[in-house]
Amino acid sequence: MGGQRSDAQRNYALILDVAQQEVAAHGAETSLEQIARAAGVGSATVRRHFPNKRALLHAVFREGVEALHTRALELAETEDARGALLEWLTALAKYAATARGMAVALVRDETDARQEHPCDRLIDAGEPLLRQAVDVGAVPAGVTSEDLVTLVTGIVLATEHRRDPTAEAERLLAIAVRGISP
Amino acid sequence: MGGQRSDAQRNYALILDVAQQEVAAHGAETSLEQIARAAGVGSATVRRHFPNKRALLHAVFREGVEALHTRALELAETEDARGALLEWLTALAKYAATARGMAVALVRDETDARQEHPCDRLIDAGEPLLRQAVDVGAVPAGVTSEDLVTLVTGIVLATEHRRDPTAEAERLLAIAVRGISP
Repeated sequence: MGGQRSDAQRNYALILDVAQQEVAAHGAETSLEQIARAAGVGSATVRRHFPNKRALLHAVFREGVEALHTRALELAETEDARGALLEWLTALAKYAATARGMAVALVRDETDARQEHPCDRLIDAGEPLLRQAVDVGAVPAGVTSEDLVTLVTGIVLATEHRRDPTAEAERLLAIAVRGISP
Repeated sequence: MGGQRSDAQRNYALILDVAQQEVAAHGAETSLEQIARAAGVGSATVRRHFPNKRALLHAVFREGVEALHTRALELAETEDARGALLEWLTALAKYAATARGMAVALVRDETDARQEHPCDRLIDAGEPLLRQAVDVGAVPAGVTSEDLVTLVTGIVLATEHRRDPTAEAERLLAIAVRGISP
């Protein structure tokens, strides 16, 4: 039974990993069947872990959000507060640009009754980085972590159909960091 | 016959005007029937001018873009180059926030074969304003009009589900203008 459970865990991790790559390569329109093929497992195995594509996409997304959360904790330990914040925002933009078609899921819907939104987790993650950057005077007081996550989300949404979405998102983020007209 | 033609022109202008208000109030999901009712004309009259909702939305959108184009020409005549550019970007953000659900149409799809895109017209409109602002040193050289239109589009996309999309878009635009960390 222990062996079966660990097989299941390995499959779960493998499917998530492959799904993340499939989404990065082909966008959120990829299918469960395509992911099963790429992972070298049967569709039934995928469906045992993820009843539908929405559940799988949600797990992929949560996984990416958790990685960004961990990265923020690491960066908060570094000396350069401004550099740490900007590195994290760039990582956020890169992740969101890779998670093609999922950026839409990042748009906060305040009319939506759901309590928990992945954005909240990202906003929490950015919070200490922003606070440190404000403390050293690198970011004007009054800017919130939510502002920054929303701005990055918008940049990614506006560039996701470009030929090189990641490069374009990074270019626009650099303009917003420096200021259009400081 | 001349009378009929001018009735048709009046209806055309009326329907466009009402449609613009309907989209602002209820988003792009509004229907041709709803617009006909609000304009006090029959559905058939609306359909004579606009065969489907897509055609009407396109006309509404083009009208808004033309107004922004005209506004840019006026602002380019004023003394304060930085103020002119920022005022125009704010007008662009406000318009895009009002044209709820249409912001998506502003996202440039480089994989799309269509030659003309409303974005091109907006980018052209912003061009002289940006050039003047760069000339007086108010905007760093290297920033393009396309960058600014894309940034504003993104801000509007990321805030369109907020309780007060216009206020939120203006807030984020102000942060991008001043710079997250200049």
